[in-house]
Amino acid sequence: MIHSTSQIRVRYAETDKMGFAHHESYVAWFEFSRIELLDSLGTPYREIEANGYYLPVLELNIQYKASCTFDDIITVHCYLKEQPRARIRMEYEIEKEGQTITTAQSLHGFINHAGTPVRPPEYVVAAFEKHFA
Amino acid sequence: MIHSTSQIRVRYAETDKMGFAHHESYVAWFEFSRIELLDSLGTPYREIEANGYYLPVLELNIQYKASCTFDDIITVHCYLKEQPRARIRMEYEIEKEGQTITTAQSLHGFINHAGTPVRPPEYVVAAFEKHFA
Amino acid sequence: MIHSTSQIRVRYAETDKMGFAHHESYVAWFEFSRIELLDSLGTPYREIEANGYYLPVLELNIQYKASCTFDDIITVHCYLKEQPRARIRMEYEIEKEGQTITTAQSLHGFINHAGTPVRPPEYVVAAFEKHFA
Amino acid sequence: MIHSTSQIRVRYAETDKMGFAHHESYVAWFEFSRIELLDSLGTPYREIEANGYYLPVLELNIQYKASCTFDDIITVHCYLKEQPRARIRMEYEIEKEGQTITTAQSLHGFINHAGTPVRPPEYVVAAFEKHFA
Repeated sequence: MIHSTSQIRVRYAETDKMGFAHHESYVAWFEFSRIELLDSLGTPYREIEANGYYLPVLELNIQYKASCTFDDIITVHCYLKEQPRARIRMEYEIEKEGQTITTAQSLHGFINHAGTPVRPPEYVVAAFEKHFA
Repeated sequence: MIHSTSQIRVRYAETDKMGFAHHESYVAWFEFSRIELLDSLGTPYREIEANGYYLPVLELNIQYKASCTFDDIITVHCYLKEQPRARIRMEYEIEKEGQTITTAQSLHGFINHAGTPVRPPEYVVAAFEKHFA
Repeated sequence: MIHSTSQIRVRYAETDKMGFAHHESYVAWFEFSRIELLDSLGTPYREIEANGYYLPVLELNIQYKASCTFDDIITVHCYLKEQPRARIRMEYEIEKEGQTITTAQSLHGFINHAGTPVRPPEYVVAAFEKHFA
Repeated sequence: MIHSTSQIRVRYAETDKMGFAHHESYVAWFEFSRIELLDSLGTPYREIEANGYYLPVLELNIQYKASCTFDDIITVHCYLKEQPRARIRMEYEIEKEGQTITTAQSLHGFINHAGTPVRPPEYVVAAFEKHFA
């Protein structure tokens, strides 16, 4: 299993008139945590794109359990629990003061610049294998 | 069943460096279509909040099937297929030039200003009943 | 002078915990109104990019005079008051129920895909000339 | 003079199809840096709101000089150069690898919950005085 944790301080711009972080804001936080998980794997997403690969979101499921608001420091856990094959499944948990406020799952697949689904780049596969060996 | 359709023109600000609308942008589009569904029911969300009720998102599931980009005119269909009880389930379909590019489902529950789950306001229940009778 | 008007319904996602539209949201509205001004000129921005030109923002000045909030229908006026030379200056006014709530000005210059400043495409110059003749 | 510096890693969601951070994204970064400047002054904005005061943006001027993109680490400098009276003027500079890519200035005034302009809270005035004495 690969696990990363990201600290995020909720921005004012991320709140809405209900007084809490808008449910849209979480989507960018999950993305941010995926970026940091790929960093921790030694395969930064910036490099993946520089190599001509993209990793779009195919599915995203979010369970909002409790809220957070401006200035809260939240921890976003990102998990890669199974060795990816054609598709990559990530899981997320957002923690605020020790409480799980949100869980989520996403599904991804590699595409090339033309938008065609492709096999993951070899060096990324190697990094996955090293961690799941 | 209640069904609304909203036309949205994709904004430049909603795109990302992959060249398409960022997957976060869809979340605001679904919300926009819910607002228009509540309008068509005669129970605008603005009024619901003015009456002291809020309808936060409890769950959101999105299936991204194909992309859209800047200046595309998309149609967001919002469906309320079953008469809501304590919780309201909405379904969505985004169409671009006759093709379904995204589907989604959301779950909502009414809360009051203090954040406590409450029964839906009577006049909203009445509007639901009228449509599902 | 070229003048376009765009109707925008303020989204819930565009509000913040102060209860009003967040000051960031206006930036996307101004952009949206520029797009519609270019449409009215017969030179859609989508085409400009398809032809290898980009029109980034060099300067943006905003004067927030009064607020707007969720579900408000606002009118964004976009003005091109002088025939553009190397740079294009746009002016904006946001109206809500007959009151000017915001004014703004932006400055733009054409660049090519490499990011180098370039002269405007001929067909855009021709469209400008036709309107300012 | 009061000066704060904030490190920000540009998010993928903050980019646009031109390949750079969208000009809207900067607005939230300036806001984030103001929050950190108020922290460094010992008067967190969260507390200011908890005390019934708000500090909306009255004017915002941005000069975009060079771009930044996904995964860039940028430094946002926020400056309060003069002791605020009724209004507070902030200045900003965004640095990327030692180069100034953007400058900006904003103007703010305190209001109460009803939206009426009010004098700054005493404890904030005291904090300003201490730094400008």
